[in-house]
Amino acid sequence: MATNKSYSVSRKKEYRATEYIEAIRSGNRFMLAQALTLLESKKNTHRVLANEILQGCLPFSGNAIRLGITGVPGVGKSTFIESFGELLVRKNKKIAILAVDPSSSLSKGSILGDKTRMDVLSNHANAFIRPTPSSGTLGGVAQNTRESMILCEAAGYDYVIIETVGVGQSETEVAALVDCFILLMLAGAGDDLQGVKRGIMEMAQLFVINKSDGENTKKAKQAELLLKSALHLFPVPENNFLPEVYKCSATDKTGLEAIESAIEKFISKTKENGSFEINRTRQNLHWFDVQFEKGLVSRALQNHDLNALRKKLRSEVETSKLNPFEASELLLNQIGLK
Amino acid sequence: MATNKSYSVSRKKEYRATEYIEAIRSGNRFMLAQALTLLESKKNTHRVLANEILQGCLPFSGNAIRLGITGVPGVGKSTFIESFGELLVRKNKKIAILAVDPSSSLSKGSILGDKTRMDVLSNHANAFIRPTPSSGTLGGVAQNTRESMILCEAAGYDYVIIETVGVGQSETEVAALVDCFILLMLAGAGDDLQGVKRGIMEMAQLFVINKSDGENTKKAKQAELLLKSALHLFPVPENNFLPEVYKCSATDKTGLEAIESAIEKFISKTKENGSFEINRTRQNLHWFDVQFEKGLVSRALQNHDLNALRKKLRSEVETSKLNPFEASELLLNQIGLK
Repeated sequence: MATNKSYSVSRKKEYRATEYIEAIRSGNRFMLAQALTLLESKKNTHRVLANEILQGCLPFSGNAIRLGITGVPGVGKSTFIESFGELLVRKNKKIAILAVDPSSSLSKGSILGDKTRMDVLSNHANAFIRPTPSSGTLGGVAQNTRESMILCEAAGYDYVIIETVGVGQSETEVAALVDCFILLMLAGAGDDLQGVKRGIMEMAQLFVINKSDGENTKKAKQAELLLKSALHLFPVPENNFLPEVYKCSATDKTGLEAIESAIEKFISKTKENGSFEINRTRQNLHWFDVQFEKGLVSRALQNHDLNALRKKLRSEVETSKLNPFEASELLLNQIGLK
Repeated sequence: MATNKSYSVSRKKEYRATEYIEAIRSGNRFMLAQALTLLESKKNTHRVLANEILQGCLPFSGNAIRLGITGVPGVGKSTFIESFGELLVRKNKKIAILAVDPSSSLSKGSILGDKTRMDVLSNHANAFIRPTPSSGTLGGVAQNTRESMILCEAAGYDYVIIETVGVGQSETEVAALVDCFILLMLAGAGDDLQGVKRGIMEMAQLFVINKSDGENTKKAKQAELLLKSALHLFPVPENNFLPEVYKCSATDKTGLEAIESAIEKFISKTKENGSFEINRTRQNLHWFDVQFEKGLVSRALQNHDLNALRKKLRSEVETSKLNPFEASELLLNQIGLK
């Protein structure tokens, strides 16, 4: 169990991997944040150090409940995560919150709506909040989130909550990261469940209708019934856990206890029937592939001659002497893969 | 210019690349659709044929206006594309409509909202509509969309319209595909411009406030003013074209002519000042990188020994003897890159 052992840390000092690992494991939030910054860095020395830290943390990872939370903009993800997070920290759980999409509410990038969010949680000793790096491809950000998750787990967090926006391809990425996926919805916000697609619905284990309060209560009840009957159309999932529907009000803080119980029940049931492990193994295989592909490209480009040819071909693409397809064929032909 | 020369085509017959290319260039929609299916295929023989077709079409591509259209779910993308598309085909323009996200309205995947969309357009001889392949990573789908675009251009379409959902990372992908990016918005749908992030706003050249009709008219006017003042906060873009704001009602079919003029003005202005070509060149460099990375992985995995080791390592990840990071390092070390 991690405690907040007081470390004397300095922004100037350069720490070794073993120092990072020890500090992270002892619950030092500053060093955890620093290590996450190293993970995001594009600088080679940073990446080397980050990889060492990652390797050192791996044996101590895997013990958190990995929770994905998604839903279209306006569904109240920030408020839900804040209220639900407060419930968890009140119960003495340590929680880490990460975001996958740059457009997630955690990243606070909206131009006119720069409210400070998650006021309470961000000041709580048991909560660690980390927005997404704003650059990089979605796949890259997801991989980075996975690595961040491993460090948070080594730091002893009981829950790692991963936020995403629920309308794009990012759900596939998040499904490759989490044990349990919660889809937040609104009652009556549209004629087709707010554009949520079948593919996303099939990934979720828990559906939560948010803003079930005030004059919305009746509509939320109707949405619950509609959703339950829609879910009957789905085949029984591999993990044998029939998706469940809950209602809550994140602002009124009602319905949250039931959601926590549902998560705990889901985790224990899937651990019992083995599907928890099957899911994590499948995720590991996915990350093996991703890691290999990324590594292959980066190693190939370390070759001096290849890099020189790449530069030459790029300039020929720039001057329209070659199209991208021809140029990449020429570059690939130069590589002797044994 | 493509015409609808009548071809005797059969689903059973296998055509050669040259036959596809000739048929596509002469405006044969069936053969175009077949070629796009080949592009999406995972079968090796299909991919080889598709690449030949692509190479043959490349010299005849590049002449369409490439238009990206995005916006959060509920903003009315389908209706806008249908109404705007009708305006274009009435003016004798040939238009092709492609989607990048599987969750786009074109893919029609919503579980309770399976309306048939784009009734008028989908039956018009000058319009060609193609939903996104439902599988694959976002990056892969975007690359596929690029290749589809090239075939549509060779078929003589004047506009290629690419639809995406406006909340995730897919905008970065679309920015790498199009000449002009339109962001659809709604008046008063939220306190922060419906969760649209600064990054996405910086990518758009035209902002269109949709549903400016009936009792919404006043709110749309207010949103227009708000948006215009927000846009003043942005630096002048590289292309020297200050983003413009328009209002329309896709259902009432008002305001659409002005949008068409704005697009034409944007294209001619950026062609004049050279930024049109600069943008396309930058996109080509991006696709050169993507193509190279994809090709590298696929060539490496053609090696028998490497594939055997990969299989062995996968089973060790499966049985938790190795973590994904260790396994990928071992696999990478096996590759001799010359």
